[in-house]
Amino acid sequence: MSNSLYLEYVQKMQQIADVNYAAAVLNWDQEIYLPEKGAATRSRQLATLSGISHELSVAPDLGVLLESLSAHSDTLSEVEKKNIAHTLKDYHRNKKYSTEFVIKMSQTVSEAYHHWVKARENADFNLFAPSLKQLVALKREEAAFLGYKDHPYDALLDQYEPALTTSESEKIFNSVKASLISLINEIGSKPTPREDFMFSSFPKDPQWAFGLDLLSNMGFDFAAGRQDISVHPFTINFSSKDVRVTTKLEEANFNSMTWSCLHEGGHALYEQGLPIEQYGLPCGEAISLGIHESQSRLWENMVGRSAIYWNHHFPKLQSQFPEALKDITANDFYKACNLVKPSFIRIEADELTYHFHVLIRFEIEKALIEGSLEVNEVPAAWNKKYKDYLGVEVSNDAVGCLQDIHWSHGSFGYFPTYSIGSFYAAQFFAAAEKQIPDLSMHLENGNMQPLLSWLRENIHQHGKRYSASELCQRITGESLNVDYFIAYAKQKYGSLYSL
Amino acid sequence: MSNSLYLEYVQKMQQIADVNYAAAVLNWDQEIYLPEKGAATRSRQLATLSGISHELSVAPDLGVLLESLSAHSDTLSEVEKKNIAHTLKDYHRNKKYSTEFVIKMSQTVSEAYHHWVKARENADFNLFAPSLKQLVALKREEAAFLGYKDHPYDALLDQYEPALTTSESEKIFNSVKASLISLINEIGSKPTPREDFMFSSFPKDPQWAFGLDLLSNMGFDFAAGRQDISVHPFTINFSSKDVRVTTKLEEANFNSMTWSCLHEGGHALYEQGLPIEQYGLPCGEAISLGIHESQSRLWENMVGRSAIYWNHHFPKLQSQFPEALKDITANDFYKACNLVKPSFIRIEADELTYHFHVLIRFEIEKALIEGSLEVNEVPAAWNKKYKDYLGVEVSNDAVGCLQDIHWSHGSFGYFPTYSIGSFYAAQFFAAAEKQIPDLSMHLENGNMQPLLSWLRENIHQHGKRYSASELCQRITGESLNVDYFIAYAKQKYGSLYSL
Repeated sequence: MSNSLYLEYVQKMQQIADVNYAAAVLNWDQEIYLPEKGAATRSRQLATLSGISHELSVAPDLGVLLESLSAHSDTLSEVEKKNIAHTLKDYHRNKKYSTEFVIKMSQTVSEAYHHWVKARENADFNLFAPSLKQLVALKREEAAFLGYKDHPYDALLDQYEPALTTSESEKIFNSVKASLISLINEIGSKPTPREDFMFSSFPKDPQWAFGLDLLSNMGFDFAAGRQDISVHPFTINFSSKDVRVTTKLEEANFNSMTWSCLHEGGHALYEQGLPIEQYGLPCGEAISLGIHESQSRLWENMVGRSAIYWNHHFPKLQSQFPEALKDITANDFYKACNLVKPSFIRIEADELTYHFHVLIRFEIEKALIEGSLEVNEVPAAWNKKYKDYLGVEVSNDAVGCLQDIHWSHGSFGYFPTYSIGSFYAAQFFAAAEKQIPDLSMHLENGNMQPLLSWLRENIHQHGKRYSASELCQRITGESLNVDYFIAYAKQKYGSLYSL
Repeated sequence: MSNSLYLEYVQKMQQIADVNYAAAVLNWDQEIYLPEKGAATRSRQLATLSGISHELSVAPDLGVLLESLSAHSDTLSEVEKKNIAHTLKDYHRNKKYSTEFVIKMSQTVSEAYHHWVKARENADFNLFAPSLKQLVALKREEAAFLGYKDHPYDALLDQYEPALTTSESEKIFNSVKASLISLINEIGSKPTPREDFMFSSFPKDPQWAFGLDLLSNMGFDFAAGRQDISVHPFTINFSSKDVRVTTKLEEANFNSMTWSCLHEGGHALYEQGLPIEQYGLPCGEAISLGIHESQSRLWENMVGRSAIYWNHHFPKLQSQFPEALKDITANDFYKACNLVKPSFIRIEADELTYHFHVLIRFEIEKALIEGSLEVNEVPAAWNKKYKDYLGVEVSNDAVGCLQDIHWSHGSFGYFPTYSIGSFYAAQFFAAAEKQIPDLSMHLENGNMQPLLSWLRENIHQHGKRYSASELCQRITGESLNVDYFIAYAKQKYGSLYSL
């Protein structure tokens, strides 16, 4: 009997997944191809799908089914039990949302996106402020009805990184802050490597082709995904057999495309590695944003910003752009890829100053959610923190508090996972180096397969079977430990800058 | 009271429209961007959306609401009354479909599409035959439960062209057949104008740009739509503010892009001209496929294949492709655009032989649906008819019975609207010529605005407010009359070929 109940559960979950993935297709299209005047009807289409998905996910008969499966779980396999446990937890959380709230949030988000685009184009925060006010109010409402122990922001963090709290995030940032500051300061006293050639001319067609090559080389399956162009690069999936990444091509900035391909490619490999037979079920989904980010950062930084990576790829790159890279060596290029310099834009930041971008956003979000900061005070607070933490003067809102898309998506509590992902990445990569024979040699030969197989086996295939900390324990023998990141940073930058 | 009921009705209809348009986005993506391995999950996503839309559209409370609004329609405006009448009719028709049937059809169609693509690539009908068998069986089942008076095919025709029957279609074809055959034969005895330059080299980038120019010139609003590339050009809309066309670029065939831009552009102008305030309601939707096709054919043929059109556009075209069009005059080009020559491919056919392509498909569909022809007999029957009607030997299935996408969409009963649309187009254009002062002069100056405004006012803005025959009466003073098409054809081709 239990078995047929489980099949009923699977059917219901997959129907919900179908609706959610359909909404994802509409979102993907919205950020890449939607014509301007189509915004309003697209907003309502997305809101309707959110409403339908929500109603399906809180349907009383789903609740009865879950309770029954949970009470008689002895005939279920371990993965089946995990699915039921996750879904039951989600069910109770979803029940806290009214359909009205869900539809309102979807509609606000969809409109906010268009306002954010306009505001950013015009470098004018005021064009986005009314939307942001609505979003913050909705998020405070959400935190209140979701409930939390210590801080309303905890309720939001938990959605992206289960079990992560505000105080835990603060502790993690505090444990890396000092080491990072001293490293950044030491580097600041050294001569700056040249990076001018990164901003010479890289024609778009061969740049696009080179990016596709990098993705292929990582193991991205183009029969189960594609790459397009968008304002803000992202990864989205409509099943593990249809995973889409986007990038941005700038003729006069080679960084833009390169790091987005490697970063989004890392996310995409995780999605493509999730088991399709678990479509729509927790064990077919990524664990958390922190673990997701560990995959993108591992490929972007540990692999993509390494000397051995460019030892392999630079000769081809140089042959594609002989003009721009005349007289440049692989080592010059490697140094330019790792130039540490405080700046305004998170996604263009180096691996070290990056975490201050995250910290600033975290502090501002926390203040907005707890109500100690008003929306109209955001630009001033933002600019002051950039001055304090990174010593840079933000010249306008477009490169300041409007730079990232996340708030327009209604995503608050998301940013800390960026740093945590980097720290997991360093810890996982250290384990991979120990466990994969001759890993460096393979990477230097451009052979990514051993690393990808290791990630598939240890991380991707499991979906939500293990929690983030269980997974980390299984792979590395301990829970998240930022020392790996600090050691990685000191070793790499110590050698790069002769510290 | 009635008013708040009407608002409730609007809300329900718009929710259904949201789901249907979401499915349309997934379909659009499926035909343009979907990676190969994503096909199976996309099929199930589409099937789920179809199922949800169907359940919403047959919900008992919608029925009660409609009956109540219909019984107390005295406080409703004329447009509101029309909306209720149409929806009530649809409601009763929709009730005849089980959710299982709808989901099965959606899933079969989605899989059939991929089989059709493969079959066409391999020019092998057998790869598509199993899907086609399933589809024919489903369509026969559909005709049976929908009901019909004389012929099962009537039930299918009615979905695309309300009130059109099999015998009426036969009557229409019979009334043009003789004139067309004698015209085609007369032309066959005359020297063939040159068209070799159409197949010289037209590099893709400027060709794409020229197509966009043609669309802009017609009045296509790129802020409310876009053009992409697909195997088979089509128009699709997600609201009148988001209308998408696709085209096909062939470097060695200038016809391919040109006629698809004008044809799909004509469809798109109709969709962009529908009233957005009637979103999701019958008066915000096109009347029928025949009327839709009248718009595409009017722009493609009456406008786009006219001498005055190319008098205006040819100089620019020649300057874009000086190599391909060296020593060619606007008149040479006009003649090549109207070369009459029996061929295999419907969408590449001239205005006269075109209708035999439609007739052949109509006869085969009718036979499949009534059961007098088996699916595996299709290629032979197809090829024989091409020999009989057009005197051409079909060299393989890819250019034969696999050439069109429609069957893979489950669209049976659709084809006659192609011919009927052409006949409406000639009749409407004759009216426009009478009613718009100096129409030819405007067109020759490249000014499409008077014609577009006339179409907007007389056709587009009304949605389903009038039936096809009411609309035709209103505009032309009589119902569909093929004499306009015959007169147009005789006049144009008589002069072109000095008959």
